[in-house]
Amino acid sequence: MAAVDRLHQTSSHLTGSALSRSSSGTALKLSVHPFKVTVIGSGNWGTTIAKVIAENTCLNPQLFVKDVQMWVFEEKVDGKKLTEIINTKHENVKYLPGITLPGNLVANPDLIDSVRGADIIVFNIPHQFLPRIVKQLKGHVQPSVRAISCLKGFEVGPNGVQLLSAYITQELGMECGALSGANLAPEVAKENWSETTVAYQLPSDFRGEGKDVDHKLLKALFHRPYFHVNVIEDVAGVSIAGALKNVVALGCGFVEGLGWGNNAAAAIQRVGLGEIIKFGQVFFPESKVETYYKESAGVADLITTCSGGRNVRVGKYMATSGKNALDSEKELLNGQSAQGIITCKEVHEWLSSCKKTNEFPLFEAVYQIVYNGVPMVRLPDMIEELGCIAEEK
Amino acid sequence: MAAVDRLHQTSSHLTGSALSRSSSGTALKLSVHPFKVTVIGSGNWGTTIAKVIAENTCLNPQLFVKDVQMWVFEEKVDGKKLTEIINTKHENVKYLPGITLPGNLVANPDLIDSVRGADIIVFNIPHQFLPRIVKQLKGHVQPSVRAISCLKGFEVGPNGVQLLSAYITQELGMECGALSGANLAPEVAKENWSETTVAYQLPSDFRGEGKDVDHKLLKALFHRPYFHVNVIEDVAGVSIAGALKNVVALGCGFVEGLGWGNNAAAAIQRVGLGEIIKFGQVFFPESKVETYYKESAGVADLITTCSGGRNVRVGKYMATSGKNALDSEKELLNGQSAQGIITCKEVHEWLSSCKKTNEFPLFEAVYQIVYNGVPMVRLPDMIEELGCIAEEK
Repeated sequence: MAAVDRLHQTSSHLTGSALSRSSSGTALKLSVHPFKVTVIGSGNWGTTIAKVIAENTCLNPQLFVKDVQMWVFEEKVDGKKLTEIINTKHENVKYLPGITLPGNLVANPDLIDSVRGADIIVFNIPHQFLPRIVKQLKGHVQPSVRAISCLKGFEVGPNGVQLLSAYITQELGMECGALSGANLAPEVAKENWSETTVAYQLPSDFRGEGKDVDHKLLKALFHRPYFHVNVIEDVAGVSIAGALKNVVALGCGFVEGLGWGNNAAAAIQRVGLGEIIKFGQVFFPESKVETYYKESAGVADLITTCSGGRNVRVGKYMATSGKNALDSEKELLNGQSAQGIITCKEVHEWLSSCKKTNEFPLFEAVYQIVYNGVPMVRLPDMIEELGCIAEEK
Repeated sequence: MAAVDRLHQTSSHLTGSALSRSSSGTALKLSVHPFKVTVIGSGNWGTTIAKVIAENTCLNPQLFVKDVQMWVFEEKVDGKKLTEIINTKHENVKYLPGITLPGNLVANPDLIDSVRGADIIVFNIPHQFLPRIVKQLKGHVQPSVRAISCLKGFEVGPNGVQLLSAYITQELGMECGALSGANLAPEVAKENWSETTVAYQLPSDFRGEGKDVDHKLLKALFHRPYFHVNVIEDVAGVSIAGALKNVVALGCGFVEGLGWGNNAAAAIQRVGLGEIIKFGQVFFPESKVETYYKESAGVADLITTCSGGRNVRVGKYMATSGKNALDSEKELLNGQSAQGIITCKEVHEWLSSCKKTNEFPLFEAVYQIVYNGVPMVRLPDMIEELGCIAEEK
């Protein structure tokens, strides 16, 4: 039965009839029906977010269907199917080894089956796979479904830079928010304390509290004692910060690999934060400056990504080994991707087409180092020189 | 001859007569007389800043008197006077070992003698020594002198929190700016690339370009190829960020010592940046929010201090050894101080007197951990709880 039908069937009994208390302590109206949640993606971050969600759906049966579907790109590990290993051993031995997953997290190799009846879809895949996934999903999701994107990056086309959340909305017709924060996946998986930001704007066809996804429901879905959630409206700000931080992290990796120390790494992050804010102001004027410096998705995510994420490791390895970006990625990341390598190219192409590369000297310098072999010792000078050209214009 | 007299004597010959180019590439009018510079303080940061200045005075004889006086609190090292070692070996073997100092940097054990004829005094001592130094200087500085404070901290009295730059102006009658940035001293001393912020407001008795300290002159004094300077007007913002970051760094040290990883450290920095901005807005409304998130003195200094400064080391050691703050400081810092230990107490006392401790939950939590033995594992809960109390008010 489609959720819309169930909704009509049950709403007369339940609407506004009771209050429950979510794990975050926020008073929440009972859902008219429990929301069914699917996570698309099972890398280390996808699996971690699925774990967080499954813990919450288990604790809040009045709000959520207990079982959480996680779509897994099927592959064999030691001759066994990864989905079967996850569903029997309750561990993603390939991408999140050592972490026990909740029993109500169900790995599903069939994308279409995994989203059947879903009320909330959480996208958590490398962004280069998104177009293919979206194409497969078309016509297979119910019209009432809402989405949250945990992806990092942009869709860059001839008409400009598009947020992945907006791309999902455009292609699939579902309202889509974003989740991003200072969240190195292995640490969240181990339940070390961290914070995150969820951004979601109530759509014009919002069906009302208890009947639709809203800020309180999203807090109940993602907040854990070890994973503190702040829900805001600025989807653009959260998405931009989440995408561009990876470019900054490559730059941080370079100066770290060169042995230049903490001051230099902090300088790269300062310049990077400034360019992220500027990018938002120029191309997404609806985004709020505050999001970048006040939210976990902004400055905190930048800091944690620059201290220990994949991109900083790749940048550092490039500096110490002399190898190029793609080889470094291959050797270090066990098949996962360093998004900054793709994002800096997309950003460069877009800025070139607007003749604005000089106004974003760090982003441009990282691109030139990654793709054109410019020596990374030139980074400080390039930041200074390009910045000066931009100011003189 | 006092500088004022020299100024009158020479100004008719030189004013506006020529342009020179400073090391930073900024066009600068020739000074009517070269400015004489004294640095008060010779810890690792004092000595490093004195080195930076002495390099620039040597390169810009048209702007500055070549020799830079550095006041050194005299002590014996292996039976020899520290000032004599510095002046013969050109190395501060006690506080900045391994770094060769310029020959025109002159260590002077006599405070009054060191400031004789000085046009610019740079204060760079631990802030608890400032009242004593100021008392000794009274009546011994020429009226035209200007100052830059590199000190971190506040003067807290019954009437509120006072910036150290304002305290210097009040006690000695000299206009005083501030220098602060992402500047771990040993890295700047080694000439690794970094950035800094100098803040200075032209005083009402400003004597004109070439005759007085202004933004261009300060850039010429501090900017080096490895030490990029931005000069702004917001003395309050620069000073507040420089003082409060040390409290945040103690908190970062705690979560690092507890093994909670990068996400937790980033969360502490995010909350800390927010409280720094709020502190500025509440108590120094003239400070600019932009300074905190755009300048090296703001977010970048916070990041570098939280990644490798004294305070983070002390906080971490407290967590891993179980020892208290003062013992940890003594064991780790070779006689230098972790300013955060003093600053968190001053901030707590001031916030208590305004009944505002709940509005700054991180600052309060750090104080309670350092001075009242509250277990540091309670840090995330205290941030959440105190923040909620403040919001409900």
